[in-house]
Amino acid sequence: MTKKRIYVYSPSGAVRDKAAFNRGVKRLQTLGYELEVDKDALARHQRFAGDDATRLAAIDRAAASGADVALISRGGYGLTRILPAINYKAVAKAVDSGTQFVGFSDFTAFSLALFAKTGRVTWAGPAVCDDFGAGASHRDPDGHGSAGAPTDDIMEACFDDLIQGQGEGAGWSLPLPRPGAPVAHGVTDLIAKNSITTGTFTDFHLKKAVLWGGNLSVLCSLVGTPYLPEVKHGVLFLEDVAEHPYRIERMLTQLLHTGLLARQKAIVLGQFTGFKLNGHDRGFKLQSVVDGLRSQLKIPVLTHLPFGHVMTKVSLPIGASIEMLIQGRDALLVWGHIH
Amino acid sequence: MTKKRIYVYSPSGAVRDKAAFNRGVKRLQTLGYELEVDKDALARHQRFAGDDATRLAAIDRAAASGADVALISRGGYGLTRILPAINYKAVAKAVDSGTQFVGFSDFTAFSLALFAKTGRVTWAGPAVCDDFGAGASHRDPDGHGSAGAPTDDIMEACFDDLIQGQGEGAGWSLPLPRPGAPVAHGVTDLIAKNSITTGTFTDFHLKKAVLWGGNLSVLCSLVGTPYLPEVKHGVLFLEDVAEHPYRIERMLTQLLHTGLLARQKAIVLGQFTGFKLNGHDRGFKLQSVVDGLRSQLKIPVLTHLPFGHVMTKVSLPIGASIEMLIQGRDALLVWGHIH
Repeated sequence: MTKKRIYVYSPSGAVRDKAAFNRGVKRLQTLGYELEVDKDALARHQRFAGDDATRLAAIDRAAASGADVALISRGGYGLTRILPAINYKAVAKAVDSGTQFVGFSDFTAFSLALFAKTGRVTWAGPAVCDDFGAGASHRDPDGHGSAGAPTDDIMEACFDDLIQGQGEGAGWSLPLPRPGAPVAHGVTDLIAKNSITTGTFTDFHLKKAVLWGGNLSVLCSLVGTPYLPEVKHGVLFLEDVAEHPYRIERMLTQLLHTGLLARQKAIVLGQFTGFKLNGHDRGFKLQSVVDGLRSQLKIPVLTHLPFGHVMTKVSLPIGASIEMLIQGRDALLVWGHIH
Repeated sequence: MTKKRIYVYSPSGAVRDKAAFNRGVKRLQTLGYELEVDKDALARHQRFAGDDATRLAAIDRAAASGADVALISRGGYGLTRILPAINYKAVAKAVDSGTQFVGFSDFTAFSLALFAKTGRVTWAGPAVCDDFGAGASHRDPDGHGSAGAPTDDIMEACFDDLIQGQGEGAGWSLPLPRPGAPVAHGVTDLIAKNSITTGTFTDFHLKKAVLWGGNLSVLCSLVGTPYLPEVKHGVLFLEDVAEHPYRIERMLTQLLHTGLLARQKAIVLGQFTGFKLNGHDRGFKLQSVVDGLRSQLKIPVLTHLPFGHVMTKVSLPIGASIEMLIQGRDALLVWGHIH
């Protein structure tokens, strides 16, 4: 089998940790992929990976690369401001020719805009620095063996499925029901919302929906713009980092009040990490937000999707037609072959 | 002259600093107003000033109070989640009967929703704790004379104009042009945008527009919902606190991409405070955001409006018909009598 080819580029924030970048590139090579690094992957203009024109040109080169995967170096901030100038047709053509665009966080803006403009599928998945470059040098002070640093097996397996065109879905375990909290758990809630009150877990099968979503802050920053796709029967997945639960709730409330959430068939919450509660919260926490959301929606709100600013992340096709299955505590998103 | 009456209530976050609250109430009494404090002004549920029903009832009581001003204790977070349940007709009736609703920060959600739903004018102005309760106890360790703490004269004068129905406008000084930065200054930019290239400052007079705006984060959280008014020929003022310039830019970019900014006649930026730049910004700062915004708009983008999370704040009628005047470095928003 010929080596799969990865084109690494930087459409958002400047690469801050060059050691992590180099570790990531090496790790991907060790995994058996052929790497091509964009000439401006390490460019810098203020906090960005080069000025707007530089990053737009990098996207153009990624689209023209003919690689199997165009992979971002990292997220940060920088895509929303260049959305009007992206050559979506060129990216769509690249996707049609077999280049999968992969990334997360700020990359949500790219994925959603491309889907809105062209209907093409991209992937919410890993980034070079954050994921393949994992393994901080302080764990490995002599610099040797950093390509063997503790990257995440599940992340790498999902990414390999993606690049080989063999991925067919992503599964995860829903949390156990909390005693005395009948509407706070994914499956019991799901059953309740479906008026299935057998007392035992019952299968749930959503036969056709569109998977979409990504970073909540970035998605909300597209509301009202031409870059947010109109998805009416979707499974919307969301994650975020360093946002206090009150801010997460404010964003979800916005999506609720626009009517967007009620138009979905299910909401799937990934990992919300990196925030700190404080003494003033007095019991207001992430679960309060989830409970509040469930009380206002007639669709299932599932949790614990392994995706977000965490090491263990699945790869998810944004804009793909999917099935969703739940059996007991097992949740599964199935998209079959995408190639 | 009979004393003007103020009804103090808490529609958002719980009062955290009761000493500041008490100082604020005392200060308002010292200034000659009659104070009525809502029975749940100090209520607490999680981070909120009582649960949703409690805060909605407090708004109802404020509307029924017959006071000259209904004044929030503080902002925080809590209004966006109860927007669908607010009795806008009751608030509109109170406004028509002469009660002015005043507040800022989270209160932006209330002001914009009321304007969207009923066209009624409320005020972006001070809050009890933050403004009239100024003067931390560490400056005044023995607790005496706290009612004479250093509240802001301009804030108090503007608030008194408001409550007496004598306010006719708000003026401020635009910044000096920066050497070598022709488009970075309010007035020179204004002139450039109006193709007036005399080299001397020229008068600018906007004869009719609608003043609106408030906290940028809160306003953005209303985009796409029924609670953001459609203002086509507006003067939009914005402020925020503890938001890094990249987040300010991301929010402004959202407003830009929705077309909202270009539909205005002018943008007036207030105070953006409480954020920290870091080493990764490499020169990206608030001025970069302002410069970027100006480069993408054909309308004036003015700065230095004394409003925001700062002590010196004017009171601004949200939804009022106004004139905007600029002469030299003097900017003026004029609304005449509102009563």
